[in-house]
Amino acid sequence: MNEKQAVAVKAVEFVETGMVLGIGTGSTVNYFINALADKIKDGLKITAVSTSAATTKLAESLGIRITSLDEVEKVDLTIDGADEVDAQFNGIKGGGGALLFEKIVAKASQQNIWIVDSSKIVKQLGKFPLPVEVTTFGAYRLLQHFDELGYRPIVRKINSQTFITDSGNYIIDLHLDVIKDPANLETELKLITGVVECGLFINIANRIIAGYPDRIEIINK
Amino acid sequence: MNEKQAVAVKAVEFVETGMVLGIGTGSTVNYFINALADKIKDGLKITAVSTSAATTKLAESLGIRITSLDEVEKVDLTIDGADEVDAQFNGIKGGGGALLFEKIVAKASQQNIWIVDSSKIVKQLGKFPLPVEVTTFGAYRLLQHFDELGYRPIVRKINSQTFITDSGNYIIDLHLDVIKDPANLETELKLITGVVECGLFINIANRIIAGYPDRIEIINK
Repeated sequence: MNEKQAVAVKAVEFVETGMVLGIGTGSTVNYFINALADKIKDGLKITAVSTSAATTKLAESLGIRITSLDEVEKVDLTIDGADEVDAQFNGIKGGGGALLFEKIVAKASQQNIWIVDSSKIVKQLGKFPLPVEVTTFGAYRLLQHFDELGYRPIVRKINSQTFITDSGNYIIDLHLDVIKDPANLETELKLITGVVECGLFINIANRIIAGYPDRIEIINK
Repeated sequence: MNEKQAVAVKAVEFVETGMVLGIGTGSTVNYFINALADKIKDGLKITAVSTSAATTKLAESLGIRITSLDEVEKVDLTIDGADEVDAQFNGIKGGGGALLFEKIVAKASQQNIWIVDSSKIVKQLGKFPLPVEVTTFGAYRLLQHFDELGYRPIVRKINSQTFITDSGNYIIDLHLDVIKDPANLETELKLITGVVECGLFINIANRIIAGYPDRIEIINK
């Protein structure tokens, strides 16, 4: 069992019958969805909310029924991955392109657990390119603006096609290397017209399950 | 000639050959597009950028070629309407649902002229419902959130169908009655996850052409 699988299996222990569960997106979460499906077959009863078309597709293929976020009163717990996490539990997410729906579900969720392999734990955020979801209209101007700010922006492409999010937007990845003040940067980016959301998740996770070659660490905020 | 027509015809005088011109959206702008088309037939040469599918359609039907915002270096002048304007040149826009593209073009524009009839000039913003463009995913939660804040939100419908913007989002209209601090409210709304843009335009217009029953007033900031 690799680190991603190990933390995914561990995370399922935090899911209780009766919960409304938010399910994140990404390779680690995919292991979680598989482990969750097994538990549901064993009798676990939950209401599941998804954060992407990809997660919905995988979950439904394994017999997990997905409910719309708008149909639930609240989300009890969301399990998601992260691309980087620092010691203050701040994170970068959106490597898989689902940051907007992930952030909407996370903010609607009373608890957020992030499952990560040890490579994602960092002293300072920024080595991982910061995804910014932007309106397609006028995106080139935003690209120029980020370039002028020295943010080394690149419009995300997949197989040489411009990547389109589930909301029909583009992703511009900022190659910052070091993010000194994540909360300030989040505010700065969010206030720009044309920016829909950014991949900085501040004060959201309250528990990290981190997988190391020899152990799993559960870190509570 | 009614007030809207009068200010539209006046506005064309500010358009000069060689300009990159942003064209807003709405009933007053439609008069402007007609007047502009006449001037172009008479030899005026401009590059036009549009703020909505509706404006593009009307402009092209009158022989005005529309260029993508991403293809121009800068926008020299944008002519647009407004739903409310106060004495500080702050405004509410988005009654026509085009606020996002309008704001992107306006912010890319070196000069912004708003053409309005006298009914749009107000002491304080807020009687006109403030449009907020939101991601469809999780929109019901945002509606609840605005309701809890006392913002009297209503999801915009046209002919009993939920209105969809050119970017595929919903509009939630906030019935605030009075907006005490427009700049603060704009920041507050923009920072909410799921909010794409709001209809507060602060520090954008630098000239207002206002039509009264007996005169036209040109007010420079």
